[in-house]
Amino acid sequence: MKPYKEWSEEQLVKEYQSLLEQFEEVKAGGLSLDMSRGKPSAAQVEISRGLLDVLTSTSDLTENGLDCCNYGYLDGIPEAKELIADIVEVEPENVIIYGNSSLNVMYDQISRSWSHGVMGHTPWCRQEKVKFLCPVPGYDRHFAITEWFGIEMINIPLNDDGPDMDLVEKYVNNDPTVKGIWCVPKYSNPTGTSYSDETVRRMAALKPAAPDFRLYWDNAYNVHHLYDDRQDEILEILHCCEEAGNPDMVYKFFSTSKITFPGSGIAALIASKANLEDVRRQLRIQTIGYDKLNMLRHVRFFRDEVGVREHMKKHAAFLRPKFEIVLSTLEREIRDLEIGTWIRPRGGYFVSFNSLPGCAKAIVARAKEAGLVLTGAGATYPYGKDPEDSNIRIAPSYPTEEELIHAMKVFVLAVKLVSIEKILALAV
Amino acid sequence: MKPYKEWSEEQLVKEYQSLLEQFEEVKAGGLSLDMSRGKPSAAQVEISRGLLDVLTSTSDLTENGLDCCNYGYLDGIPEAKELIADIVEVEPENVIIYGNSSLNVMYDQISRSWSHGVMGHTPWCRQEKVKFLCPVPGYDRHFAITEWFGIEMINIPLNDDGPDMDLVEKYVNNDPTVKGIWCVPKYSNPTGTSYSDETVRRMAALKPAAPDFRLYWDNAYNVHHLYDDRQDEILEILHCCEEAGNPDMVYKFFSTSKITFPGSGIAALIASKANLEDVRRQLRIQTIGYDKLNMLRHVRFFRDEVGVREHMKKHAAFLRPKFEIVLSTLEREIRDLEIGTWIRPRGGYFVSFNSLPGCAKAIVARAKEAGLVLTGAGATYPYGKDPEDSNIRIAPSYPTEEELIHAMKVFVLAVKLVSIEKILALAV
Repeated sequence: MKPYKEWSEEQLVKEYQSLLEQFEEVKAGGLSLDMSRGKPSAAQVEISRGLLDVLTSTSDLTENGLDCCNYGYLDGIPEAKELIADIVEVEPENVIIYGNSSLNVMYDQISRSWSHGVMGHTPWCRQEKVKFLCPVPGYDRHFAITEWFGIEMINIPLNDDGPDMDLVEKYVNNDPTVKGIWCVPKYSNPTGTSYSDETVRRMAALKPAAPDFRLYWDNAYNVHHLYDDRQDEILEILHCCEEAGNPDMVYKFFSTSKITFPGSGIAALIASKANLEDVRRQLRIQTIGYDKLNMLRHVRFFRDEVGVREHMKKHAAFLRPKFEIVLSTLEREIRDLEIGTWIRPRGGYFVSFNSLPGCAKAIVARAKEAGLVLTGAGATYPYGKDPEDSNIRIAPSYPTEEELIHAMKVFVLAVKLVSIEKILALAV
Repeated sequence: MKPYKEWSEEQLVKEYQSLLEQFEEVKAGGLSLDMSRGKPSAAQVEISRGLLDVLTSTSDLTENGLDCCNYGYLDGIPEAKELIADIVEVEPENVIIYGNSSLNVMYDQISRSWSHGVMGHTPWCRQEKVKFLCPVPGYDRHFAITEWFGIEMINIPLNDDGPDMDLVEKYVNNDPTVKGIWCVPKYSNPTGTSYSDETVRRMAALKPAAPDFRLYWDNAYNVHHLYDDRQDEILEILHCCEEAGNPDMVYKFFSTSKITFPGSGIAALIASKANLEDVRRQLRIQTIGYDKLNMLRHVRFFRDEVGVREHMKKHAAFLRPKFEIVLSTLEREIRDLEIGTWIRPRGGYFVSFNSLPGCAKAIVARAKEAGLVLTGAGATYPYGKDPEDSNIRIAPSYPTEEELIHAMKVFVLAVKLVSIEKILALAV
């Protein structure tokens, strides 16, 4: 199979007609599938049901004498801090346990920095200008938070080993209005890439012009490996920052949303003691405490970090074949035609597809015609603007394998149709 | 027993010596008791343990086809909205279900108004001055939120039928910098009083100078009656506001923190559809959704509003005798001496004690000497400043009855000692 760009116009037109027929056929099949979010399937979620048997009316609801069913313990029960600390490779004193959503923790970090400032520095709302660096493609919900607060977002290319660090250093070390960078350092959303040791070390060694600059380190996929034998590992950022003389420069985020039940897990903020003290000053105004029974439930269900690792293997067993379906379809149907590129991730929840420039929106629209809802084109960029109109996030987790095979058929047809339209239009 | 003020100096000195001896004896007993917060006792919390059996690994985790163990449903599951709507006498469309803390909901309301404004109006942080009215004595955690945002707080006397409405109207209807008033309309924290129908109607009929003025209506003790036969009922504020032509003027707050497990309940914001739409615009930036399994747990445990009412009777059975201990001790030991006043509440969590002016701080300090920790004097006022230094919040719920009898002995001795000191000092 030759690349499309080497086909004659006549060949392309003929191919287009044939594809269109196939597409109409598929459309008539009446697919209705939402693949827009990184949501585990119903069957996959089932593996956490044991969590619901951990606490019953006859359970001991205390842990080392601490009563988990009454008020108190603003920043979480010690056992939950220990569990999360083990998973994210820090000490329990570096952990605050929150409610069910790490996104909410990130929002609160930005919101408080905006209204009250970071560790005594001028609140962002009193500063002329606040900017954030956004490695792209990235996570739309990160960008939505900074956009909500009117923070100017700057695109930073995300390479195979992490963000373009020359550019990051140029901005952070020289511009005092740059207050943060959104990072998904492991199995990045959406590319699936992980930061190299050099990238993490350069991040930790930044010399920010702004004293209130922080790395917003979203460890969403910390333990979300697809394979037993091929796993990405990254350096622990708190330790790296401390070694580099920047102990307070990072907020790390974590949750069990994609470990136990999405929406009913526990979330955490991980940072230096000084940062956490700053956070607690506000936290004690905001709440009396988070759901300690759910913390207890998680602690007793997993026992320890090994329990979490074992549990994650069960998740991988669901996800692996789905990633294989997506990747093998792309490899079989798209690669030789040279109308798209992607990375083969070893973990996380997404495959990031790059179409020919200027095609992503049209591909997503085409897919929708046939009942397949993909993440909106552009969503992986700040302000929803992909300058190349090329990136599409594929989320294989939610459909069944059968549905996914069908969905990928639709996707491939859409990519081919739009690519030919593009090539023919350019040829005119 | 004559009032202390009618005693001769000699009599008072003699009484003082005798009280001091009793106090030293009690002190030697080594009491250590924290009565500072409105926290149910360990035994009382036990009545909700059945909640933990409602969901198990074999439960149906869907409700009308809606999957409660996966992402989605930003503003809560319909069944939880219905349950809460029934309890707080509104329609489900007026309800958003949050996480475990209504305090957090209130904080978020203020925080968003501060950073982004209310329904399109100028954010408070861009306004020269923002003020809140604070009926006093009131709830310290309310005042802490407004203080945190640098909002100027104005004391409004809380009478037996609610806040001084002449003063409220004067401020709200004339001063455009007044953006809100903190209200605990039923079984007020700490006085236990409830707003009369006239007070509620006058609240609803306010003509605020500020278009972004809201009533912050904390229905914390909505179903928290002490008695079966004597219960306070108040008018429903959303309806009253709508009738008065002010449909968007109120945010009502509710949680099950003192219904099921403190810290592991569900919270709600209740407001007009227009207000909730305004809230949702931000909510979808802040989170993917709250803990739906905990919502489901509550819905299935209670079934309906009647289930909640029945459950509250069990709480009352624990609280009633404790309130009786406090009140009968005060009546027996303090009343005739005319060194304190209080109201006999029909619900809620507190007895509000007013000492002779200038004595509260000293009484709390005295009690602490003997191992009894009370809510800090002044805590019931903005900025912790009780201009009379007179109000002390007594929270009878946490100790056992035996402990409470002992605690009240300490309290009464402290009140008497400090009162005599005051009277003698004035006489000098």
